[in-house]
Amino acid sequence: METYVPFLVNHWRTVGLISVSIAAGVALGQLNQTKGRTVNRNQQVHSNIVVKPVKSESANEQVDEVKDDDQQFPEDQEVLPIVFQYEKPSEVDSIRRSEEFYLRMNQRRSVREISSDPVALEVIENIIKTGGTSPSGAHTEPWTFVVVSNLEMKQQIRQIIEAEEEINYKQRMGDVWVQDLQPVGTTWVKEYLTEAPWLILIFKQVHGFKQNGQKKIHYYNEISVSIATGFLLAAIQEAGLVTVTTTPLNCGPSIRVLLNRPVNEKLLLLLPVGYPKVGATVPDFKRKPLYDIMVHYQ
Amino acid sequence: METYVPFLVNHWRTVGLISVSIAAGVALGQLNQTKGRTVNRNQQVHSNIVVKPVKSESANEQVDEVKDDDQQFPEDQEVLPIVFQYEKPSEVDSIRRSEEFYLRMNQRRSVREISSDPVALEVIENIIKTGGTSPSGAHTEPWTFVVVSNLEMKQQIRQIIEAEEEINYKQRMGDVWVQDLQPVGTTWVKEYLTEAPWLILIFKQVHGFKQNGQKKIHYYNEISVSIATGFLLAAIQEAGLVTVTTTPLNCGPSIRVLLNRPVNEKLLLLLPVGYPKVGATVPDFKRKPLYDIMVHYQ
Repeated sequence: METYVPFLVNHWRTVGLISVSIAAGVALGQLNQTKGRTVNRNQQVHSNIVVKPVKSESANEQVDEVKDDDQQFPEDQEVLPIVFQYEKPSEVDSIRRSEEFYLRMNQRRSVREISSDPVALEVIENIIKTGGTSPSGAHTEPWTFVVVSNLEMKQQIRQIIEAEEEINYKQRMGDVWVQDLQPVGTTWVKEYLTEAPWLILIFKQVHGFKQNGQKKIHYYNEISVSIATGFLLAAIQEAGLVTVTTTPLNCGPSIRVLLNRPVNEKLLLLLPVGYPKVGATVPDFKRKPLYDIMVHYQ
Repeated sequence: METYVPFLVNHWRTVGLISVSIAAGVALGQLNQTKGRTVNRNQQVHSNIVVKPVKSESANEQVDEVKDDDQQFPEDQEVLPIVFQYEKPSEVDSIRRSEEFYLRMNQRRSVREISSDPVALEVIENIIKTGGTSPSGAHTEPWTFVVVSNLEMKQQIRQIIEAEEEINYKQRMGDVWVQDLQPVGTTWVKEYLTEAPWLILIFKQVHGFKQNGQKKIHYYNEISVSIATGFLLAAIQEAGLVTVTTTPLNCGPSIRVLLNRPVNEKLLLLLPVGYPKVGATVPDFKRKPLYDIMVHYQ
């Protein structure tokens, strides 16, 4: 019999009291490090260990005893309850704020024609930080966001993806299909991969590591990282930038090696991020009306 | 060889021109239906067909020929390009807006002590609509949000989940564990399932239906619905409400039947939504610093 597994652990209070705690409050020594790690592409070329596995650098590793298969309660750390800081809005404010946010998000579209105009690192950092506020299964935060502004690296990523796409066009789609495409000029070429000032490559950490080096399962890691991507996409929209959500699944292993990510990380999504080109177009899609996506038991 | 599969279809422009189009713009007749479908619990009790499968009501079904296993291009519908409506912010604005959004999202916490104070339906509708602005694989929008304010229905959901949790406590956790919990009073009881004014049950549509009734695969449906959940959680935060993200996976089938959802829909997440109780507490978690979640190739 499977059990009800809380996405965020149910029993934290109990857990705290019996001296078993969820991985948290453990990176205190690093809290003043508000910048992401940077990798100089030239360094990277000459060394394979410039980028270390995220988990091996994380203080979270210090508290890794798994108490229960479904509910990972690391030991040696007490997480005590604190009063939730909160100010209740009026109903009118709730309605207004939720409507305004909807209207802003509803203007989001996936845009493939991305300008090469630069975007400040600070904006990208705010976007990644927002992704990092997402909830995650047992507070494992199983995500790594690799941001690439280095042109050479973008070119190599583009090369990997376009090589796969060329096979797709030439071998999988069939002659008729490819012939149909020729007059339109659509090919396997993906300009945005080098034109966009930033690529964000989102990795899920399919497992972590215990203190003794053994694997620590990350439950719901794909759901967690996808939810975090929702926060991240909302943040891109709030910043006035655009992206297109892509899933280069078959390219994952090559890109993981290129970016020197450890084997416990799998590429989930790739987002080219920037401003849209002037006159950029999008397909005239409509979204499903509320009637089609919501059912209310009243 | 697998192929590079775009999360949002790559070739929409081409697709439009060769008269093959992505499911979209097809629900135009329903666009003025801005309310969710409502189900009166008493009606529901006496009839098994008050709630019809979402897909069978969706006009999307009318355009369902699958052209390619990986890229579902329904026919009979042209999606022409339109100019993307956009106003470029200044860099200062981008930085400010992205920081403000981060700060708002960073105040989000998973809260389990939810007040029974009522929350306006309009707020919930705005939240669901925001979830519906999320991108999805091939624009399939494979989500159904069931919102429950009906007390009897909440009680039945609670009964299903607590029954599973009781088995969890009594059979899986062991005597010592349960004994340890007794003085703390933590049990399998989940008050928030009936106390919260709203439950949002998020279903993924693992497949849709073609016009001829055959299954139409929804690629990336779990990733898509999880991303949409990220938008939805951000909207809950913007509205000044709280929730806790739970995954009652083993309860899915029973709850699906209770809510009269079709078999192509699987329960992914359950969110109790409302205001926090006065003095509600949360575990004193810290989030990983930017250094731990972001790697920059510059």
